[in-house]
Amino acid sequence: MKIAVCQINTTVGAISQNKAKIIEYYNKALEDKAELVIAPELCLVGYPPLDLVEKKEFRKSAADAALEIASITKDAGLIFGSITERSDRVGTDIHNSAILCYYGKIQFIQHKSLIPNYDVFDEMRYFDPAAEIFVHEFKGEKLGISICEDIWNDADYWFRQRYSRDPVNELIAKGSTLLINISASPYSYGKREGRKNMLSVLTRQNKIGLVYVCFAGTQTDLIFDGASMCFSKSGNLVLQGESYKEGYFIFDSNAEYPPVEKSEGSFEEEVLEALIFGLKEYCAKVGFKKVLLGLSGGIDSALVAYIAARAIGKENVNAVLMPSKYSTDGSTKDAVKLINKLGISFEKISIQPAVDTALKMLKPVFGDLPEDVTEENIQARIRAVYLMAVSNKFNCLLLTTSNKSEMAVGYSTLYGDMAGGLAVIADVYKTDIYRIVKYINRKEEIIPNEIINKAPSAELNFGQTDQDILPPYDLLDKILKMYLEENKEINEITEIIGEKETVSKVLRMVDLNEFKRKQAAPALRVSKKAFGYGRRYPIVQGWRR
Amino acid sequence: MKIAVCQINTTVGAISQNKAKIIEYYNKALEDKAELVIAPELCLVGYPPLDLVEKKEFRKSAADAALEIASITKDAGLIFGSITERSDRVGTDIHNSAILCYYGKIQFIQHKSLIPNYDVFDEMRYFDPAAEIFVHEFKGEKLGISICEDIWNDADYWFRQRYSRDPVNELIAKGSTLLINISASPYSYGKREGRKNMLSVLTRQNKIGLVYVCFAGTQTDLIFDGASMCFSKSGNLVLQGESYKEGYFIFDSNAEYPPVEKSEGSFEEEVLEALIFGLKEYCAKVGFKKVLLGLSGGIDSALVAYIAARAIGKENVNAVLMPSKYSTDGSTKDAVKLINKLGISFEKISIQPAVDTALKMLKPVFGDLPEDVTEENIQARIRAVYLMAVSNKFNCLLLTTSNKSEMAVGYSTLYGDMAGGLAVIADVYKTDIYRIVKYINRKEEIIPNEIINKAPSAELNFGQTDQDILPPYDLLDKILKMYLEENKEINEITEIIGEKETVSKVLRMVDLNEFKRKQAAPALRVSKKAFGYGRRYPIVQGWRR
Repeated sequence: MKIAVCQINTTVGAISQNKAKIIEYYNKALEDKAELVIAPELCLVGYPPLDLVEKKEFRKSAADAALEIASITKDAGLIFGSITERSDRVGTDIHNSAILCYYGKIQFIQHKSLIPNYDVFDEMRYFDPAAEIFVHEFKGEKLGISICEDIWNDADYWFRQRYSRDPVNELIAKGSTLLINISASPYSYGKREGRKNMLSVLTRQNKIGLVYVCFAGTQTDLIFDGASMCFSKSGNLVLQGESYKEGYFIFDSNAEYPPVEKSEGSFEEEVLEALIFGLKEYCAKVGFKKVLLGLSGGIDSALVAYIAARAIGKENVNAVLMPSKYSTDGSTKDAVKLINKLGISFEKISIQPAVDTALKMLKPVFGDLPEDVTEENIQARIRAVYLMAVSNKFNCLLLTTSNKSEMAVGYSTLYGDMAGGLAVIADVYKTDIYRIVKYINRKEEIIPNEIINKAPSAELNFGQTDQDILPPYDLLDKILKMYLEENKEINEITEIIGEKETVSKVLRMVDLNEFKRKQAAPALRVSKKAFGYGRRYPIVQGWRR
Repeated sequence: MKIAVCQINTTVGAISQNKAKIIEYYNKALEDKAELVIAPELCLVGYPPLDLVEKKEFRKSAADAALEIASITKDAGLIFGSITERSDRVGTDIHNSAILCYYGKIQFIQHKSLIPNYDVFDEMRYFDPAAEIFVHEFKGEKLGISICEDIWNDADYWFRQRYSRDPVNELIAKGSTLLINISASPYSYGKREGRKNMLSVLTRQNKIGLVYVCFAGTQTDLIFDGASMCFSKSGNLVLQGESYKEGYFIFDSNAEYPPVEKSEGSFEEEVLEALIFGLKEYCAKVGFKKVLLGLSGGIDSALVAYIAARAIGKENVNAVLMPSKYSTDGSTKDAVKLINKLGISFEKISIQPAVDTALKMLKPVFGDLPEDVTEENIQARIRAVYLMAVSNKFNCLLLTTSNKSEMAVGYSTLYGDMAGGLAVIADVYKTDIYRIVKYINRKEEIIPNEIINKAPSAELNFGQTDQDILPPYDLLDKILKMYLEENKEINEITEIIGEKETVSKVLRMVDLNEFKRKQAAPALRVSKKAFGYGRRYPIVQGWRR
């Protein structure tokens, strides 16, 4: 069977626009003689639709659009994802469904059986699981259609199962000759290769082909990388869609293909591409043509500037240099060198007069109290006042440049350097920032070496470096990765790296700074455990206090 | 049976502290000759523990503490809530459980059957439902023990059921002679009276007594009001615990009591008490002794100042007056009058010099572009720089003073008046603010009438009033309540109040300002649908754009 694998980029809530796109892809695929056209999970309503699902008018609009899509179908089948409703008044009455239409009608609907409710997934909030799963015969194939999570519960592959059912096993037992999975699976580094291995085991063991169709687009912080996958009956990945790119390709389930060896590039390559894609898509979907960022001369803002230039074009990136009396000449020089390298535009505004005025106004209140972090924060916040003013006046998106290590330990100023609409690299550890920058410079020096080689500093005081307060980044990031990504606790971490006092201090900093992260900008997610929606920690708590 | 109903206030994560408190209450109850002592849902780990549950060391610590508690029990039974673990490697393997101990041992564990996963509840993320529910015989009574949500699925009471099981019916069918429900049910106005009615129907129809024990404390934005309830076999509420106050009382299930007529006070009284409690508890649990707020001379900040003085004492409340050239003399005068009335301390800092300096620095960038909202935001943000500086220097909690109507339509400045650690009245509509202030003034003028009677204005420009941009608050709040609390959509709302254009404009403003609310401070929750954790809307979306 000739199958058009459509990794469509749709927008949450934009039902009529999404409908038009599904129809457009279907018609394109017809020209390529496709017999079955497949689009991703929930693509008609966008993924994840969140509480929009709770609106009656929204559900009705989705139902109407599904019928309209069905009405234009001909002999070729079309499978796409949307929400559907029951009315038995128990549970949510709503399903996350795969809709199969041909000959002008909806012919078959399969609901999702396994409803993920962990990390960034809240689907049990909205969707009831399928009561049963069916095979549908179409053009001589017995299609076994599942939705995303349905295929992630293989008892042979996973040590621990989240669910007691295995819908894909049920489909195979019911005589499926071809498996189809429509998906919206958020990217994190390593996940694609893991998925390839899992699906390869599944198809090889059951001697059955599989078409896995994934959404290629983003939703605020979530990045869906496309890279749809087709597997042969012998368990080989034989075709893979482009990553970080909407589009479609034809897979012939009866043809022979050579295996695809590697599904995923290096950490540096993938994460960089994912971040570029994430920023580009955010601007496109929200409608920002230009972005803005404060450029300090440090490595974090340098990387964000580079990503921005790649994402939306250097002519749309505005850097603002905002030196204070603590800024070194070197920093400004390094920043200007980068600006010239990238070809982006910039403004220079000294914050010192405004900081001095603020301090003078506060003098009657502060009296002779010694300087502390307060005065450092004032500088960071005055910078935010300027950046937000420029952002407001020229309608450009302000990018924040904090990295994950800083965000973790709260080494950042709320309403200061944390201000902005999107946090581009807040899910990338400091040591990984260096790796990515070195990768960018692999052929030529794009990000000046001066920026890479100097000691990291917030420059909020004379001679300050990050390591005045924080452990060395190598050590810090090791602790953070174990704590955040692997959910290890103080004793386990200490056993591995020693330094109990440092471990304890770091974990405490992470816990205590939950209140800052609660007010942080959404951060593009590239790790398997990012701050934000997928990590829910109490602000007020007594564990380890 | 003599039952000690303990509406204990425990802290999320503070297991050893919570353990000590449960033991302390048990021992107190023994002195009162209690035969059964009951403490709320998950009180050993605090509610809601969120992702702390995913930590192995945390679960182990909870399990150890439960055994320690059990070890001190004697002849009197003790029921308390905590997390427990299975190990069959399907699902989360974790339960939300009621633990019954006596004679030094855990004698019986009942897991929660119905796992709420809507609004502010994410319990399916953490907990597997009970496979079965059992009656436990103790001192001649067949105890039917359920946990919170378990009792909220009565098919006779609700038009629509969330779950297909009814565990309380199962307990009754199994011969229960006394129902016990341990709970942590977040307060919103009207919920207590609704609960009373529901439980009254249940007990009357089944001719069975019920002891309902609720947590009295807060967790950041969530307020748990205590007000534990005891019902007779005839369906009367016969004893009720204090609201917004930790404590305990004895209920004799064999004694006769006169019915309690009303469980809940007026809207104004309850919401005011809830907010005072919420602020007091937040300060206590985070460790803030003092609070700070910007006082504008408007009604919102006046109400917050009053609440703060009631919550933590007037001597711990610091107001900052920060006039600009747009501030009227009246505003400052009104603010000072309030300050004197409340007896709180204040500072006055003019923001004008800092605003002028900022504008001067931005002049080369802005050129001759006309003034717009940018300049207004600069004022609000300079105020935030000052407030945060004072907050940092003196370690006091900055309170934000935005109301729900403003937060809904985005009539507030991000990093400006939205800055702060806790939003005290951000779940109260503007028109309700007036009602509450009139209630406060019912006996004497505490909040000056000048503040109540003037037209609301942000005073960020000459002669500005809120109604330059917003529809009248009466109309705005009507629309917002239908949209936010009742989930009505544009057509339904227009049908009720007409003014389609206004309705459409308001709904659009709500949707478009999701990005601001994403970065807002936690807001004390007193309505059934508050912004924050319980309302999850996409920032990027195309529904109605």
